[in-house]
Amino acid sequence: MSETMLQGDHMKLTLAETKFLKESVGIIADIVTEVRFNVTANAVELIAMDPANVAMVVFKLLGSAFAEYDVKKDCVVAVNLNDLKSVLRRVKPSDTLTMELEENKLKITLKGSSKREFLIPLIDVDEKEQKIPDLNFTATVQTHSDVFSDAVEDADIIGESVSLGLENGMFVISSSSDLSKARIELTTDENTKIEGAETVRSKYSIEYLKRMITANKLAPNVAISFSQDYPLKVEYKIVDKMDLMFILAPRVDND
Amino acid sequence: MSETMLQGDHMKLTLAETKFLKESVGIIADIVTEVRFNVTANAVELIAMDPANVAMVVFKLLGSAFAEYDVKKDCVVAVNLNDLKSVLRRVKPSDTLTMELEENKLKITLKGSSKREFLIPLIDVDEKEQKIPDLNFTATVQTHSDVFSDAVEDADIIGESVSLGLENGMFVISSSSDLSKARIELTTDENTKIEGAETVRSKYSIEYLKRMITANKLAPNVAISFSQDYPLKVEYKIVDKMDLMFILAPRVDND
Amino acid sequence: MSETMLQGDHMKLTLAETKFLKESVGIIADIVTEVRFNVTANAVELIAMDPANVAMVVFKLLGSAFAEYDVKKDCVVAVNLNDLKSVLRRVKPSDTLTMELEENKLKITLKGSSKREFLIPLIDVDEKEQKIPDLNFTATVQTHSDVFSDAVEDADIIGESVSLGLENGMFVISSSSDLSKARIELTTDENTKIEGAETVRSKYSIEYLKRMITANKLAPNVAISFSQDYPLKVEYKIVDKMDLMFILAPRVDND
Repeated sequence: MSETMLQGDHMKLTLAETKFLKESVGIIADIVTEVRFNVTANAVELIAMDPANVAMVVFKLLGSAFAEYDVKKDCVVAVNLNDLKSVLRRVKPSDTLTMELEENKLKITLKGSSKREFLIPLIDVDEKEQKIPDLNFTATVQTHSDVFSDAVEDADIIGESVSLGLENGMFVISSSSDLSKARIELTTDENTKIEGAETVRSKYSIEYLKRMITANKLAPNVAISFSQDYPLKVEYKIVDKMDLMFILAPRVDND
Repeated sequence: MSETMLQGDHMKLTLAETKFLKESVGIIADIVTEVRFNVTANAVELIAMDPANVAMVVFKLLGSAFAEYDVKKDCVVAVNLNDLKSVLRRVKPSDTLTMELEENKLKITLKGSSKREFLIPLIDVDEKEQKIPDLNFTATVQTHSDVFSDAVEDADIIGESVSLGLENGMFVISSSSDLSKARIELTTDENTKIEGAETVRSKYSIEYLKRMITANKLAPNVAISFSQDYPLKVEYKIVDKMDLMFILAPRVDND
Repeated sequence: MSETMLQGDHMKLTLAETKFLKESVGIIADIVTEVRFNVTANAVELIAMDPANVAMVVFKLLGSAFAEYDVKKDCVVAVNLNDLKSVLRRVKPSDTLTMELEENKLKITLKGSSKREFLIPLIDVDEKEQKIPDLNFTATVQTHSDVFSDAVEDADIIGESVSLGLENGMFVISSSSDLSKARIELTTDENTKIEGAETVRSKYSIEYLKRMITANKLAPNVAISFSQDYPLKVEYKIVDKMDLMFILAPRVDND
């Protein structure tokens, strides 16, 4: 922990609309526990890799999402997401939420019908700083986030991995077990935009995807990008507010 | 599996109103797992006995309940109800559902904001074909299905078996344990019709009854028939759509 | 059990508004199981100590809360609250509920769309009669019961005990663990009245408090009284209907 962490006057961040922080932390905590938030002049950002090195989470809450965004000097706020999630669960929709640093802790103040303060410890995160990999995708799909979540949950009743693919201009989500199969087809329409001429197909862990798709409660749309036997990018974005992106390694079967 | 099972063009059944299939399969799967549906020109029918030989389920979904009902030749569709239930759980109220046979599987297609296909295996059911027993009842009661469900749940907090009886023209549902008793009385009124002059009484397993009474979500009324120490028939019926009937063996105590 | 318990004509108590009995018994059953209700000309009363001698419950359901309140002679009705709770769970808002004594049992009759009777055993309670201790408090707070319940639940995410205190005219609810802290401040306003000049502070078990604060569903307001390292009194009251009071021993830490 750098010395700058010990001073309390570096940042004061106030949210009136707490949903984006609250829901995002709940989702991310299911993938990674100990994280570093980079608090800069423009945004609160997090890049983290899950312990099994299968999934990366990139989260950005923009300064413009805050009612008050006062960052005197860039800083790192490293916390256990379960600590943060417990506090955020106590936030009511009508509360305003303020985050500050105090006594080497993150202080969260909720103001509603009473004033409620929570102090949670800052931690040391050993892990090296993550970098978003440079990826090139041959297929991209934009659709309703609910439609994609439903498709993954459909696939989940059959198999442990899900195939995403383009076939004849359709986006196909499928899974199979020894004897059963699920296959969901999306075509281009007013809600769905499919790009990528080739036939591509790649397989991913349904367990990880199931945690990611709960972000449909954060954003009405999702952008899905992939290539043949290549990582998947799933991105939920609200302009001027937040961006929650997941990168998931492909699952390469020997069969 | 007979050779006719291998052909895919025998049947195409489409439901716009999926509730009767979805809810019925959910209820039946709690009593029996491996079943044979007889698909005939008029209806999809199932007669099954639970593994303990205590309860029989008779389910009929009439051709007139379907938006499209195309059965070229009578056939048997044997499936594991848990497989079918998993798929049916994914049906949304606005989906249309089509069932076909394909590659020795049951293919279920859901059409809503996307097209979703599920293939589940057809199975061999060793059990011999069940026949509905010929029963004569001395007591019959028709009432609101919610009222009967509540009465059984009332009895459930006290004992493991429930007595159904007629006493002085009342329908009496009762249970007892060493020290406690429950007794529910229904009298003839605008919602309840009680027939059977005699005083009759018979005891049944509450565990089985509790699974059957969840059919109150399918039909507003229930017909209950029994005799002294004799099987019970509980029937939920929607004219021109479906009929879900249970027969439950009496419980004869030695005390 | 005294001889008077065996007669059935001592009391007939009918409730049209069943909520106060139903919800109170549900809450009390989480603290103490075997209880004696004293049924007198004016009220049904209960004073009970939890098995660990940490918490006392005092419950009074006034005669004026009943639609019919006919008590010919004072009597004691001792029951297992889990038995009573199971029956009360079956009460629907539209039911009227009648309590009588019959065959050395408590008979509860529910009348709605059917007539439902439950008999539960009267029991022997060995424990000596409890007396409400004479307590003098230096701090009293009246506030919305929801606000107090929220504050205790806020404290619960951090620690196992909660401190209640007055500081500079504020009511402060706080808890801490090795590294985290929660602190909720209430000030006097139109909903909250704080009395007691001194700085006082006392610590209580959050486990017990969590069971007590569920009484916020019974009454909109709560009265909280305490002193330095002294028992806590939490009282939920509806004029002319009921009074549910808890007394909780302080938690004295060695640290």
